Amino acid sequence: VQVPGEVRVIPLAGIPAIGAGDDLAGELLVAAARVGGFADGDVLVVAHKVVSKAEGATVDLSDVVPSERAREIAGGTRDPRVVEVVLAEASEVVRRRGAFVVAETRHGFVCASAGVDASNASRLGEVVLLPRDPDASARAIRGAIEAATQRSVAVVVSDSFGRAWRRGSVDVAVGVAGLSPLLDLAGERDANGYELRTTKIAIADELASAAELALGKTRGIPAAIVRGVATGGDGRARDLVIPRERDLFR
Amino acid sequence: VQVPGEVRVIPLAGIPAIGAGDDLAGELLVAAARVGGFADGDVLVVAHKVVSKAEGATVDLSDVVPSERAREIAGGTRDPRVVEVVLAEASEVVRRRGAFVVAETRHGFVCASAGVDASNASRLGEVVLLPRDPDASARAIRGAIEAATQRSVAVVVSDSFGRAWRRGSVDVAVGVAGLSPLLDLAGERDANGYELRTTKIAIADELASAAELALGKTRGIPAAIVRGVATGGDGRARDLVIPRERDLFR
Repeated sequence: VQVPGEVRVIPLAGIPAIGAGDDLAGELLVAAARVGGFADGDVLVVAHKVVSKAEGATVDLSDVVPSERAREIAGGTRDPRVVEVVLAEASEVVRRRGAFVVAETRHGFVCASAGVDASNASRLGEVVLLPRDPDASARAIRGAIEAATQRSVAVVVSDSFGRAWRRGSVDVAVGVAGLSPLLDLAGERDANGYELRTTKIAIADELASAAELALGKTRGIPAAIVRGVATGGDGRARDLVIPRERDLFR
Repeated sequence: VQVPGEVRVIPLAGIPAIGAGDDLAGELLVAAARVGGFADGDVLVVAHKVVSKAEGATVDLSDVVPSERAREIAGGTRDPRVVEVVLAEASEVVRRRGAFVVAETRHGFVCASAGVDASNASRLGEVVLLPRDPDASARAIRGAIEAATQRSVAVVVSDSFGRAWRRGSVDVAVGVAGLSPLLDLAGERDANGYELRTTKIAIADELASAAELALGKTRGIPAAIVRGVATGGDGRARDLVIPRERDLFR
């Protein structure tokens, strides 16, 4: 029996709190050096929260004046300033129940609160948005790491999304660089030699979910290296969005 | 900097083709022994396809007489016998476009074709269903492994599901044993000391997705060990289902 390789998820610890203008790629390089550095073929998964903070994609709630609609939606259950930011980030509200809003973002993602991360908003006084162009964020991090290390790496920027029909969140890809987010098995043959039907695997989302197992939410570990997964191609996270006209759930 | 542990995904190779009545747990033990055996805290992820085959949860298409409705839905694009099986497995058709059916299964999962796996159906002459009670399947495998090894392991039975709004499939949990499929972060504090809002992570789904990165569809590897993830509790995959009355997308 030929034993195939393992997949390893290597958390990158020791990254300090990131603020606007900080050199996130530099911090990722320092953290990676502690665990032996990058290898060719590595996929670096970075939680969008630190990417957004480095890019200044945050909103100071003291600067926000909620609209009448935001106040209505917030009811008594949510900070109307947070709802105002959600509405500003939403290109379309897809579903709403009370102050809980599922919306399409300008990137085309459908997710809770249009991707606005309001955990601890009331105490921190700010909310974190998705990066303006998460694929560009991933490309910039990839470029800096490849320039510094001469290693070929891919980058996934991740966020925690809820799902239709299933409880709980899983991490998915909101930005990618250096890989195709969909692995197309069409034409490949399974172990019995039969051709598989057209089957696309959202490998970038699975990479994000695998990384989340090592990130955790409570340990201040915003990034992980996934090693041992054969990726290829080049694409953007938007490739993961079902076009509106083909979407049965819009 | 304290370097936290890695997560490892260890594929279990060399498992022969599984048929009805075969000792799947025995084969998993043999395969695991090749990679050093199970350790306490391991999560064994097994693709539902081999579980269903071992349990005889397959349908020989030559035994199926399609109804008029199945013929209508199949149109000219799909084997009407496969559609007949899909309708039989569905407790409710949630959405349909042509012969593409999204349905609720008797377990409560909402997925394409009510979980009926018809890849290669026309050549193999059979389709593979979801296990009748995937949590019970997981419990049985877990019991056999713990009895043989004296190790404390959890088991996840996985399937590839499409998603609303996002292209491509990801592996999720359809059966679990020895872990809670939802990790509840309520009351935990993040790295800045702030209490997190109620946040549930669908850790069983993330474990399934992580395992899929090592399984692949084309290599005949139906199971993997995920090592290094702190799991706890005890639950069932049904805990992952959003109750119908609270589901915004039904």
